[in-house]
Parts: sequence; C-alpha cells; structure tokens
Amino acid sequence: MKSGLVIWFTGLPCSGKSTLAHLLHESLKGQDVPSEIFDGDIVRQRLTKGLGFSKKDRLENVRRIAFVAHLLARHGIVSIVAAISPYQEARDEIRKEIENYVEIFVDCPLDVCQSRDVKGMYKKARDGEIQHFTGVSDPYEVPSKPDLVLKTSIEPQAKSLIRILNFLKEAGHIDIAE
Amino acid sequence: MKSGLVIWFTGLPCSGKSTLAHLLHESLKGQDVPSEIFDGDIVRQRLTKGLGFSKKDRLENVRRIAFVAHLLARHGIVSIVAAISPYQEARDEIRKEIENYVEIFVDCPLDVCQSRDVKGMYKKARDGEIQHFTGVSDPYEVPSKPDLVLKTSIEPQAKSLIRILNFLKEAGHIDIAE
Repeated sequence: MKSGLVIWFTGLPCSGKSTLAHLLHESLKGQDVPSEIFDGDIVRQRLTKGLGFSKKDRLENVRRIAFVAHLLARHGIVSIVAAISPYQEARDEIRKEIENYVEIFVDCPLDVCQSRDVKGMYKKARDGEIQHFTGVSDPYEVPSKPDLVLKTSIEPQAKSLIRILNFLKEAGHIDIAE
Repeated sequence: MKSGLVIWFTGLPCSGKSTLAHLLHESLKGQDVPSEIFDGDIVRQRLTKGLGFSKKDRLENVRRIAFVAHLLARHGIVSIVAAISPYQEARDEIRKEIENYVEIFVDCPLDVCQSRDVKGMYKKARDGEIQHFTGVSDPYEVPSKPDLVLKTSIEPQAKSLIRILNFLKEAGHIDIAE
C-alpha cells in the first residue's frame, strides 16, 4: 500500500454498489491492505442519522461520509464508500477535496435495478409509499468523469472486481499480488 | 505505538479541554505517533452539523464522534477528542463500546471557567441569550470513574501534558521516548 485513498461507488439503488464494495473490501483485507467500508445501516445509524432525502440532506450525507473517509485515507487506509450520491455537484466537491479519490460508476439500467429490488424499495417508490426515491421520484445524475465504469448488468461480479483491482494497481494506488 | 486508542477529554466549557487536547496532539505528532484530533468547528461543521443542545442531541453528538474516533483507533491511530460530553450515560456507552478508551476529566471550578470565558459564551448564557449552556442552564455530570483527572485551575498546562503522557506510557498505551 502506497498511501490511503477513497474509492467511491456511485449508482442507482440495487445497481450493485454494496456487493462490489464488500467484495473489494474482503479482497483488500485478504492482502493485508488496511481498508474500511462505509455502507448501509452502520452509516445511516452512526454517521448520518436524521438526514432525509432532500437535495440538501443528500449533499450533507455525501459530504459527511467523504469527511470521515478522507480522515482515514489521510492515515494510509483505503476507504471504500458505497453511496447512491446522485448529484454531480457533490461528487465534484469530493474530488476537489480528496486528492486520492477514485470514482467508480456502477452503471446498471434502471429496469435491471428494479428487477433486482432486493428490499422491495422500488415497488414502494412506484406505489408512492416512499418519496424521493432515486431513479423513480428523485434524479440520478450520471457521473461526468468517473475513473471506472462497471456494467453490472452484463459483467460478472468477479470480472468487475478484477477490473477494479487492476485499475488500482495500474494507477499506482495499491501494491498487491496478482 | 502499540495499538490505537481513544483519548476523551470531558469537562465544562473553558475548562481547558481543547488546549490540552491540542498540546497532546502536537506532542504525539512530534514523536511520530499517528493521531487525529476531534475538536471545535471542524467537528461541528463536518460531523455533527444540525445537532442542537437537547439531551437527545448531545447524546447523538457524543455517539457520533465516538463512532468515528473508534474507527480510526481500530486502525492503530490515537484519536483525541475534546467534547463537553456532560452525561455519564453517554460516557458509559463509549467506554462499553471502545476497548482502548481513556477518559480524562478536565476538572476546573465553574467560577474559573467563567473567568476565562474565551468567547463570551458564559456571559451570553447568564444573560439568557444562549439556552442549554452547560454549567449555567444545562447539567454537567461529574465523571464517576475517569482514568485521569486534571485540575487545570492549579496545574500548569505543561505539567498536565506530562501527566497525560506518563499515564499513557504506564498504562501501556503508547511507547514514546522520555
């Protein structure tokens, strides 16, 4: 490991962000690269409790995760974030703030995300039970300059993981065995 | 450095928490012990924005800082926190959650804190311009089992700093030169 960095997975709900983030986390742990993951309930319970889904709250959500991920990165840790982070404005801010920032766009068509619908959230959003749901009733701005794009609807997870690791090695971010 | 830990300064406003926390931070940095400080505006702006001073919000404030400080500690970093943290309930929670937790009670009489009143906050609190001000209109529960007590009204800062470093060494938390 050369220095810490922040690897940020952005994409629609059910696009595959969390799955890939956890695969990457396990892979790095297995190679003794110090890393930390920011995803799911632990973030919502401990870091961003009380924030909702307005644009203002979503921006604050992303800024707060970025702050903590960056803190760790400055101490040589690879921070892996899985967050919808739908606004280009917020992603631009993170890139500006964090030198070692790698943005991975988990690019999966809406209909495929909806067909996965792990927690039945898309259905609730379509039924109007959930407001401000990204992809249904809230915008997702496609990243203008991601460092890596993963098409999870056509690429197997293992292949995506290898592409991430190769990218990180080639960009000089991490030193790990083949 | 053996492993990360969380060093938590608790005490009234103007008791000397921040000053000592920064002195400790500088001292550790000077000896290449990886450390991070959680204090002041950076915390309020980036981590706990929007939280007020009700008991509920104060508990959330402390829990959130503890979560992030612990994250860093788990990666071998010494997290230094300066926060009023007036409730025993919250401090008990932190101790339960964080194995390597060192609580330092910055014990300074209220009248001395008021006489320092760096930002004129005590005056505003007494004048009723600020509500829920610890020591004036909000409680401070004296720690029931701090690991170290610093009497900043009678002890010079340099002496307090030495006592902290000695405590950390003797407890086996850090390995640093005399």
